[in-house]
Amino acid sequence: LVSVLSSAIIVYRLPWTWKCSKLLMKFIHAGLNTIAMILAIVSMVAVFEYHNARNIPNMYSLHSWIGLTAVIFYSLQLFLGFAVFLLPFAPVPLRAALLPIHVYSGLTIFATVIATALMGITEKLIFSLKSPAYSASPPEATFVNCLGLLLVIFGALILWMASRPHWKRPPEKNAKVLQPTGETPEGTEAESTMTDGTNANKSDKRINSEAARKQNLKLDEAAQRSTM
Amino acid sequence: LVSVLSSAIIVYRLPWTWKCSKLLMKFIHAGLNTIAMILAIVSMVAVFEYHNARNIPNMYSLHSWIGLTAVIFYSLQLFLGFAVFLLPFAPVPLRAALLPIHVYSGLTIFATVIATALMGITEKLIFSLKSPAYSASPPEATFVNCLGLLLVIFGALILWMASRPHWKRPPEKNAKVLQPTGETPEGTEAESTMTDGTNANKSDKRINSEAARKQNLKLDEAAQRSTM
Repeated sequence: LVSVLSSAIIVYRLPWTWKCSKLLMKFIHAGLNTIAMILAIVSMVAVFEYHNARNIPNMYSLHSWIGLTAVIFYSLQLFLGFAVFLLPFAPVPLRAALLPIHVYSGLTIFATVIATALMGITEKLIFSLKSPAYSASPPEATFVNCLGLLLVIFGALILWMASRPHWKRPPEKNAKVLQPTGETPEGTEAESTMTDGTNANKSDKRINSEAARKQNLKLDEAAQRSTM
Repeated sequence: LVSVLSSAIIVYRLPWTWKCSKLLMKFIHAGLNTIAMILAIVSMVAVFEYHNARNIPNMYSLHSWIGLTAVIFYSLQLFLGFAVFLLPFAPVPLRAALLPIHVYSGLTIFATVIATALMGITEKLIFSLKSPAYSASPPEATFVNCLGLLLVIFGALILWMASRPHWKRPPEKNAKVLQPTGETPEGTEAESTMTDGTNANKSDKRINSEAARKQNLKLDEAAQRSTM
């Protein structure tokens, strides 16, 4: 689940994918997230059936509360992402306004899922290791602790990749005026594809008018941290 | 601890503090982080003494492993931040290069501390609630679960505030050429205080030369997400 989620997050950050069309990238992103959602639902059903079969109460732990909250927000995120960014009906200003929220909530849900996994590991180690107990540090405890630590390192790496501006997908070549995705790379406002239609070239482009510049600034602020 | 850490993170994001000098802000940021570090050390000493007094093994749980990792990275972060950003010896390019790493690792340590707290809460509830057990959902369990959920919401809000570009501290007025902090607000490359010395005005400033622009782009990329 975490690995599929991670793939969905960094799919825009892999230089070899920058050659693919933006629509293909969106489909890969949406597809990976749909797979992750299916895995989340399957695992939740498995937990409830396991609890019911062994007469363990459901939804009593902090792990379950935060996990369920994350899944609810994740399904909301998936639905909104599909409706706004994949279907062709949403107007550009709406996309530009929702994109930073989409990116932020995606990364926050990812971090919350990792925290939930860490709580689940803690619970499982306490409940499963009885003789010797978890506190006696048997090899199994040490091994699973290492896995938990690796999970944190892995999550930190993914968040690093997702937040680096120079690993951002470059603007499309031959972009049309008002390209419908709100993509405006940070620090390259002069090259914004939102207001300037010609082939963007980092070092040679100049802003054409003050009006365009001001609009650029505003849209840049809205679409900041875009990964679309 | 979490609240002091949060204050240290968002101190640059509060509009009423934008009137303070940048040096004062840095001192407040460093001071709050020092207080948080002292609290972290005091609480760790308390845990070890409590464990030793009750013959509980130390450092066996995933909570302790990840917590100690976070504290080690936090002390490194504090030391590097002090040496590079507070002492006046570090050259501007070094500051500009380290700033995004400083911001990223600060926020990642903050998220890791929250995850550690959640694991600690889970452990404590399992160990302390015996009759009725945690799984029977006594009022205490529900109450502490709510606190855990609030902790996640609180952390998410802090990360939201810290990652919004328009809540970033605006550039200093009357900034000098090569201001020594690497501050270049996102999306306002034309107003960079790194290469352009006069009073910055968002809508009227233009870049003077291609060379300055290119240097701006480069520094912008390095100092991206600056909160200094």
